[in-house]
Amino acid sequence: MSSSIFNPPSSTTALLLRSRHPVLVGPTSLRFLTVRSSSPSSRVLSVAASATEESAMVIDGKAVAKQIREEIAVEVSKMKEAVGVIPGLAVILVGDRKDSATYVRNKKKACESVGINSLEVNLPEDSTEEEVLNYISGYNDDPAVHGILVQLPLPSHMNEQNVLNAVRIEKDVDGFHPLNIGRLAMRGRDPLFVPCTPKGCIELLHRYDISIKGKRAVVIGRSNIVGMPAALLLQREDATVSVVHSRTSNPEEITRQADIIISAVGQPNMVRKSWIKPGAVIIDVGINPVDDPSSSRGYKLVGDVCYEEAIQVASAITPVPGGVGPMTIAMLLQNTLSSAKRIHGFE
Amino acid sequence: MSSSIFNPPSSTTALLLRSRHPVLVGPTSLRFLTVRSSSPSSRVLSVAASATEESAMVIDGKAVAKQIREEIAVEVSKMKEAVGVIPGLAVILVGDRKDSATYVRNKKKACESVGINSLEVNLPEDSTEEEVLNYISGYNDDPAVHGILVQLPLPSHMNEQNVLNAVRIEKDVDGFHPLNIGRLAMRGRDPLFVPCTPKGCIELLHRYDISIKGKRAVVIGRSNIVGMPAALLLQREDATVSVVHSRTSNPEEITRQADIIISAVGQPNMVRKSWIKPGAVIIDVGINPVDDPSSSRGYKLVGDVCYEEAIQVASAITPVPGGVGPMTIAMLLQNTLSSAKRIHGFE
Repeated sequence: MSSSIFNPPSSTTALLLRSRHPVLVGPTSLRFLTVRSSSPSSRVLSVAASATEESAMVIDGKAVAKQIREEIAVEVSKMKEAVGVIPGLAVILVGDRKDSATYVRNKKKACESVGINSLEVNLPEDSTEEEVLNYISGYNDDPAVHGILVQLPLPSHMNEQNVLNAVRIEKDVDGFHPLNIGRLAMRGRDPLFVPCTPKGCIELLHRYDISIKGKRAVVIGRSNIVGMPAALLLQREDATVSVVHSRTSNPEEITRQADIIISAVGQPNMVRKSWIKPGAVIIDVGINPVDDPSSSRGYKLVGDVCYEEAIQVASAITPVPGGVGPMTIAMLLQNTLSSAKRIHGFE
Repeated sequence: MSSSIFNPPSSTTALLLRSRHPVLVGPTSLRFLTVRSSSPSSRVLSVAASATEESAMVIDGKAVAKQIREEIAVEVSKMKEAVGVIPGLAVILVGDRKDSATYVRNKKKACESVGINSLEVNLPEDSTEEEVLNYISGYNDDPAVHGILVQLPLPSHMNEQNVLNAVRIEKDVDGFHPLNIGRLAMRGRDPLFVPCTPKGCIELLHRYDISIKGKRAVVIGRSNIVGMPAALLLQREDATVSVVHSRTSNPEEITRQADIIISAVGQPNMVRKSWIKPGAVIIDVGINPVDDPSSSRGYKLVGDVCYEEAIQVASAITPVPGGVGPMTIAMLLQNTLSSAKRIHGFE
């Protein structure tokens, strides 16, 4: 089935990651797939892959994110010991949207779990833009703050572009500043930060040893926060990239050519079996609530990709939830750590 | 043959542009193709298209560039009359490369032809980076200068990135500053300037009324100065864009899917007939010297696309020379004019 684009695993030891689905990679009936660690000191996870006909390997974002947080925790404590500095992330939340409050709480918890200091300010809905800018200015100058994150969306009376542009580029851990995006697009230049969600997508491919160079990649969606930077990242790694969007006349036909699909459009189950080349790898960024009477909440979360169909034809796929989602916060922690390292010349 | 992607022409009056090749657009045996003018006051050029089997329309960059220069001349004199300001372009040339000297001379001439002031400084090869930066700083502050252009390549002892980044973004008429590129990549943001050569490619499509929205476009090459910004521009106009490059394993197959091909790789005659979908539109940015004993110079210039083969299958194509080349300087003049307008709040 799959003209596998995986590199052969180099190690098959250690922890067995539980996957909710049986795994098939390539033509062999039983093999191990290594989840790589970027830090040579930390252990190498591996997935025991037992064969079941037509069922993709599940890319376990939750497990990878956990591993990355462990690596970050080690680095944070090393840095504290060596130079006496603890990385700090400041989060600015304006208004009382419940979803935003939840995101901010999760970020705070994640910081705590790795030893990063988190500062938080919660401003009332009717704050002025100037008040927000004052807080940003304070954090820009605060040597204990290495990353500044403004939780979006802002109340409608504020100019989002003005607010985001006020964050010092050296502390723009979200990576959304146009100067960062420009550097991401340009060969021979390097951004200070890469936006967290697309960075998490690529990190998953790396950790699963999925080769990108020379592969056909299709990114579905061209948003500033996911699709566009994901396409630039894939191209930086020498993929041949096509971007499919709402004006594309034949998205199915183009997507079917991809070895790697990254979908980020927010359309539940849009990508069907017929869109997927056998053996393709799928990174599903969509997190879409759909009605589900069987759930106590009355809804469930699904991706942009019809999971039940995709696992029959793809060679690997991220689940929703538990795929890209957990990676976003892990990458935010990583950006904050690397900002602190850069500012203090550590490593 | 071609499932024409041209809009129907709306006007068929005025000047007959001479084309070196007979023209066929769509299934009709004799039709007119309008070359649009962006300025309603200036005349509309049109191409009389006489049918010859299997021969693409020639996109006449020389004629379009001439028309644009005429439009700019009108605007420059209007501006001078209304606000007493003459747009000014400063060009910095370091060293004595003959080709660079020729480019700079051509830019100077082009400025003169439309009434734009040109300032030029020619520094010796062994100048220091600081000397160049001093000139840039002076032009940055000079109210008579609205555009600053550093002729590349710089001598090898200078850091090109440092020098280019020193140009004030409001005067970066080359459009190469990463902040400009970032804005070009982002939806909802607008760059102050678009790099001249890719802008010229898109302008040719516009002037020939070639529809971009929803079309498949393939850009061959991913350079910072042409390929990458061309891809971003096409995507801004709602094309579905794929970027083919040196690591692409099947460039022919992907290119053959394109309604619009922009090639910018510097490989003579690389794109052959078999790469081209019948009816595709080809914008050939390559200008490659190849041996030609029959020429008095001993060489001739050819594009990335094998012209003799391409005209048999494409619906429209730019010649080399006389296609994209003349557009680059016309776009530089346009960027300089619009910079002056923006700085002085004119129009």
